[in-house]
Parts: sequence; C-alpha cells; structure tokens
Amino acid sequence: MLIPRLIERKRDGLSLTGDEWRALVAGYVAGRVPDYQMSAMAMAVVWRGLEPGELAALTEAMLHSGAMLDFGDWSTPRVDKHSIGGVGDKTSLLLAPMVACLGVAVPMISGRGLGHTGGTLDKLEAIPGFNTRLSLGEAIAQVKKLGLVMLGQTPEICPADKKLYSLRDVTGTVESIPLISASIMSKKLAEGLSGLVLDIKTGSGAFITDPAQSQILAKTMIGIGEAHGCRTVALLTAMDRPLGIACGNALEVIESLEGLQGRGPADLMEVTYALAVEMLIVAGVDTDRAVARQRLEETVSSGRALQMFARMTEAQGGDPRVVSDYARLPRAPVTMEYRAVQDGVVCDIPPRKVGHAIIALGGGRSKTEDTIDPGVGIMLPAKPGLRVRRGDVLAVIHARTEADAERARTALDEAIVLAESATPLPLVSHRVTAAGVEVLIESSRA
Amino acid sequence: MLIPRLIERKRDGLSLTGDEWRALVAGYVAGRVPDYQMSAMAMAVVWRGLEPGELAALTEAMLHSGAMLDFGDWSTPRVDKHSIGGVGDKTSLLLAPMVACLGVAVPMISGRGLGHTGGTLDKLEAIPGFNTRLSLGEAIAQVKKLGLVMLGQTPEICPADKKLYSLRDVTGTVESIPLISASIMSKKLAEGLSGLVLDIKTGSGAFITDPAQSQILAKTMIGIGEAHGCRTVALLTAMDRPLGIACGNALEVIESLEGLQGRGPADLMEVTYALAVEMLIVAGVDTDRAVARQRLEETVSSGRALQMFARMTEAQGGDPRVVSDYARLPRAPVTMEYRAVQDGVVCDIPPRKVGHAIIALGGGRSKTEDTIDPGVGIMLPAKPGLRVRRGDVLAVIHARTEADAERARTALDEAIVLAESATPLPLVSHRVTAAGVEVLIESSRA
Repeated sequence: MLIPRLIERKRDGLSLTGDEWRALVAGYVAGRVPDYQMSAMAMAVVWRGLEPGELAALTEAMLHSGAMLDFGDWSTPRVDKHSIGGVGDKTSLLLAPMVACLGVAVPMISGRGLGHTGGTLDKLEAIPGFNTRLSLGEAIAQVKKLGLVMLGQTPEICPADKKLYSLRDVTGTVESIPLISASIMSKKLAEGLSGLVLDIKTGSGAFITDPAQSQILAKTMIGIGEAHGCRTVALLTAMDRPLGIACGNALEVIESLEGLQGRGPADLMEVTYALAVEMLIVAGVDTDRAVARQRLEETVSSGRALQMFARMTEAQGGDPRVVSDYARLPRAPVTMEYRAVQDGVVCDIPPRKVGHAIIALGGGRSKTEDTIDPGVGIMLPAKPGLRVRRGDVLAVIHARTEADAERARTALDEAIVLAESATPLPLVSHRVTAAGVEVLIESSRA
Repeated sequence: MLIPRLIERKRDGLSLTGDEWRALVAGYVAGRVPDYQMSAMAMAVVWRGLEPGELAALTEAMLHSGAMLDFGDWSTPRVDKHSIGGVGDKTSLLLAPMVACLGVAVPMISGRGLGHTGGTLDKLEAIPGFNTRLSLGEAIAQVKKLGLVMLGQTPEICPADKKLYSLRDVTGTVESIPLISASIMSKKLAEGLSGLVLDIKTGSGAFITDPAQSQILAKTMIGIGEAHGCRTVALLTAMDRPLGIACGNALEVIESLEGLQGRGPADLMEVTYALAVEMLIVAGVDTDRAVARQRLEETVSSGRALQMFARMTEAQGGDPRVVSDYARLPRAPVTMEYRAVQDGVVCDIPPRKVGHAIIALGGGRSKTEDTIDPGVGIMLPAKPGLRVRRGDVLAVIHARTEADAERARTALDEAIVLAESATPLPLVSHRVTAAGVEVLIESSRA
C-alpha cells in the first residue's frame, strides 16, 4: 500500500477501503506513516469528506488502536453525555449523579478547558483532593460499585486519536465534521457504552456556529454510534450566551451543588434535565420523557443526587464536605462588581468574550500547558432580554488581584452588550436521532 | 505569524499576503516550519489554488531562497525552452545549438527522466565524458564564451523548491497548477533569462491530459514570467505518441545529430523549429516567424548548428567526434525487430506505454535513484495514421539481453494499437502568450 496513492485518491474525491483506513491508522501509530503524509491526508479529508463506510472504518481503527473500558457481562446500562464545548456549561456535574441514582451507570471520561471553553476535569479538580487521573481498572471498579465515575483521558484509550489530534491542531485540519466525529466517537465508544447523548452547542460561542453544520455533525456522530450498537441522540442547545450564572471552576462547582439542591439557575436546569432525560431514554430505563423528568427531579428533591455527588467525590479522593460547606472550595481574594453604565436591555453576551475574560483572570487556558487558578471567575446573572438600569450590578468578578479584576472589567465592556431588545436562541432547539431531526418548539426562549 | 492560522486561511479559500508567503518559505527552508505543516498547506493549495499575487510571492520566495545565474551587465539576450515532459522529446538537443548560432545565449538547466518521461541530462550523458554537473561559475563562463550551456540543477538554485518538491512527491500534492508553475518558473527565472518558451505537452502521454488545464498552466506560467520581466510564450504540442522515431538515450542523441544535419524525422523537426522560432521572437532578435525559421534552417544546412553542438560537447568534457562517428556512443548488444501481426492502420501509440517499455529495458527510471543504461531503447518509425501490412517492421528494440528484448516486445504489444483509422492530435496546436491563446490551424496533422 503506497501512502501517496491513498492521499491522491482522497484528494481526487474517491473513497478508500476499510482495510486502507485501518492500515493507514496502524501505520501512523507505529510511526511508519510520517506526520507529513498524515497531515496532507487530513487536509484532503477536510476538503473531500469521508463516505459513511470510510468514517466507520476510521473510527473503528482509532477505537481499536488502544484499550476500552471492559465491563464484561455486567448488564447495567451505561450511558454518557458529551458536549462540544461551551462557557458556563456545568451540566455534567449535575446530570451524571442524577442519572446514576436511577439504575443507569455513567462512566464519564471528560476533558480540560482550552480557549474560551471550560472543561469538566478543571471544574472537578477545583474540589480539594479530587482525583481525575484514575486507571481504567479503578474506573471500572468505581462504576460497578457506585454507578458513577468522572475521570480524564487515559493514555491507553485511542492513542491513534491522541497522535492525530495533536497533528490536526497544528496543521489547520481540526475543522472537519468527519474527523471531529471520528475523534469524539472513538473515545466515547471506548467507554463501553450502551447509550450516548450529545450536546451540540449552537450560536456564536459554539465550536460550529452554523446550525445546518451542527445538525450534520449530530447526524454523523449518531450514525457512528448506532453502527456500533450504542443508542445515540443529540440535542442542539444554545451557546449564544454562557449557560447558568457562574463562569469559573470553583464558582461553577458551587452552582452545580446549588442545582443538585433545586436552586440552580433556570436555564442551566432546563438544559441539564433535557439532556438527562435523553440519557434515561437511550439507557432504555424510560420511554416517557415526562416520567423520566419527574424521576430526575425526585433525585434532586430527595437529596439523592447530591449524596451521589458526595459519594463520587469521596471515592475519588476529594473532600465530600464541600457539598454542604462551599468555604472548603478555593476562592479568589478580590471581588469587583460590574455595573451597567446606561439603561437598556441585555442584548448579547458572546461566550467567547466571557471565556477570554476568564483566561485573562487566570481561570482558563490559551495553550494546553497553561495552569489555571480554580478560584477565579465571573458571576454573570445578566441574561439576554434582561432590562437593566444604569448602575445595576450585571456581573461580579472574582480575581487574584485588583489589576486582574480591572482587566476582566475591560473585557466585560465588550462581553455584555446593551441595546433596545434581545433575541436569544431557544435553549434546547432540536433533537436529532437516527430517525431524523425534531424541532422542539416548546423550549423557544431562555 | 502562526503557521496553523495561515494554513486555515488558505484552507478556507482566503489569500495570504506576500509577506506571509515569504515568511512561510523562509521558515520552511530554515527548518522552523516542519514538513507536516508544509504538506497540509500544499494540500490546501491543491484545493483552493493561489491568487496571482500569492503565486508571484511564492515564486519570488522560492527564487530568492538560493542563487541565480548572474550575468551582470552582459547584454546578450538569454532564452531557454522548458518542456513539461514527454517520450522521445529531444528538441532541446536540436534547438539550443541552433538558437545559440543566432546571437542568442541559451543557459539551459535541465532535468533527468522519471517515470515514462525522458530527461535531457540523461540523453547528454549518453555522450562519453559529457559533464552536466557544472558549477554556476562554470556555466556562466561557458555561456559568455560559447553562447550555450546545458547542465543539471545545482544545489545553490532554489533550495526551497527542492525541499518542497520532495515533500509534494510523497504527499499527493504534485498535481496543482500553481505549485507546478511556481516550481518550474522559480528555477527558470534563476537562469537570468530575458525570454522563455514553454512546451506544454497535450494528449495521453502528457503530465496534464486535459487541454483546458494545459492552457491554464500555460497562462499561469506566462503570468509569472512576464511579471518578472521575462518574455514568456507557450506552445501546446502533441504528446499522444512519442516525438520522432528514437526513444532511448543514445538513440535519441543520434536522432538529434541527424536532425542537426537536416535528416531528422518530420514531426521532430516541426516541433523543434516551432519552439526555436518562438525563442528567437522572445529574445527580440526576430519579429517575423518565417524569417526566423529560415535563419534557423540555415544554421542546419550550413552545418553551424552541428558545429555548435560539437563545441558545447567538447567544452563540457564530452567526445566531440560523436557528431560524425555514432559508433562512439553506447550501443545495446541485442536488437530485435517488432513486426505487425495483422494488416491495419497505426491508431495509437500511448507514450506512457512506450516509456514503460523503455524502463523495462533499463533505459528509464521508476524511482529517482535508479541507474539507467544509455544504450537501450526502441526505434519506433510507426506513426499514428500509417497503414501497415502483416509482417511490416513497426519497431526495433535495442536491449541488453534477449530476455529484456522479449519483455519489451510484450510491452509493445500494448503500446502499438492497430485499428481502422487514426486521429492523432495536431503537432503544434496552440500558441499562448500574455495577450491570449492563438489556435494554430496550419499545423493540424502529424
């Protein structure tokens, strides 16, 4: 098999066979296929796309380049939720313990924040002692015992994806729906899932801002999941403004814990419940969404979900007392109010700008190797559509120094746009399943 | 300047600035830009193309990555002819000495054969002692003294192109009109030319088989040449069958020497004169093509062109007696006739198949590092349109062994197609200049 001939075929819009994709990935992992050929191939894929059979073979090859979470004959349904990234998105911290209370195991492997988006691992690690670096064996044992684990990528899972993603990151080949889909789905399928819910963000702060492309991405990933026997559903949710009020790792943990006690912001809870309901559906333990929703609400009102969170925290070395004593979480020493300079309606809160303000505070990363301060962040109760008067507090900045806070204040000048009116996206706009796309009109406003 | 951002812009169909192209090429040559980024960029260029300004900047950057033939204030016009490759194409050996007899200097830097196409250097090196590995200083001195030099690429010229071409060769990124154009034109402009004639082959044996693409390639290269003050003209010539009769290095030298004595095959001489006339026009020493043609024919009839060839051969260490004593050239020990197995008309002689038969004889290269035997080859007097009878000699194979000859005979079974009729391409079909494309109806048949 001559690699340049394979690259030429893809370049010319032709398909490669499954065997060719498998050999290419195996050769790449083994170092026989050099980076400079793989990057040219990646660009040809960005250009020409992949046929469904090619996508299945590529995903399969990446999945089988490493180990999987092997639950043997354990029959408990296992589901996960994966989000394409956002600002203020702490739904994982809420829905995972809720769902785990209802007989469905959640073996969740998450990532870190990069650029304007936050990451679940960073939020969890704001809890003193919380260990996300579990081995595969530890993760399996915890899932079987507790029904829930939240950990980071392990080196054994999808090494082909790790190598390829690093290459794509520096060769302008990230933005490809088939490559994104194969990358995400190979890692998710390695969790040994029976069901998966995808949260595809839409709007200016989303990775993909074109709604049509979001639907294609959803359908592509669903196709891969279903082909591997993993029931997969996607919700398209709004990321034209941050989700919830808290932005910043420890602040988001607090908001999550509030949510698990029934006191979360309405938008955060709506998206959380919508995703969690779909998790119960794909797990096969519920068929009626209204019933599923009631059962989830009961895990909150009964305190079971909060207790599940505390048990997971303890199992992973963290201090479970945080659930009732937020003072045990890191806290930034300086707080500064951000007030409206004029009357108006909050029109737009671009998540990218909020994310960049968080980076300026030291709470996010522009490069993978950046370290973050878990205590800093911004509380942003202002939402698009809110009518405000000059002098109203629109945000509270939590910073390490006065100077940092001033920088964040300047950043917020651009991030909070006042105008005459606002037209935010519906919070949960579409449900995409193997059967097609449903428009969810009932949730048309934030 | 972040290289991934530049790749992304080109990927998205946007343009880079001249400074960005210059920095990219400089960084690549210096090793700061790794191969894996350059190959992704090359694929993005295959996809999106280059705007004229980008192409000019890329060519300029490659040209200035190394040294040039510097003729100082020497005022003699300098022209070259470049061909995009073919089988049996020995026009350079004929037209260079002819033109050099007429007050126009020819500093010709040529290449070696690869795949089905032959190379001028390989033909010249069939002459015992002929040295094509001259330094830039030696080449300049010989041009100033004799008006003619024919040498190979030197390491000082266009190192960026050398590095990039090697990368493109193994990453499926050769087939790009702007990249091909920048590669060729940077090397040609490094010869310090005032004029350049391009021989763009068309037909099945050409590098680009689509005539529309050939014209775009011609226009693209002309644009670059003219922008650099080098008058550039292209002729589109037929490569749907080999040019002339001889295919194989020493055999082609003999045919060239015959041509320089007025005894060349008609098709070879027609293409040679057509290209040489354009060389005199772009050199500015002739304005009337009929007059130019007469002056060229006179260099042959007078013996001056042959003498020029002998003087160049002697100046470059070769045995000048070959021009009158072909026995001094290498010769294959075995000859075998190839006869028609049926009556018919020679319909098609695909150059690629003839080229592969030459490789099978040891006279061509499938890989750059292959060594070749200059004595082997095929004399192919059969031309499309020729009516033949069963038993007629269509070709004579010159081989090292009987077994080699048998293999070539089998290859010729596929390379010489007999049928009812033939419709070969016109030998010289179009002239392309900065002003536009002219269809040359007068030369409509082989």
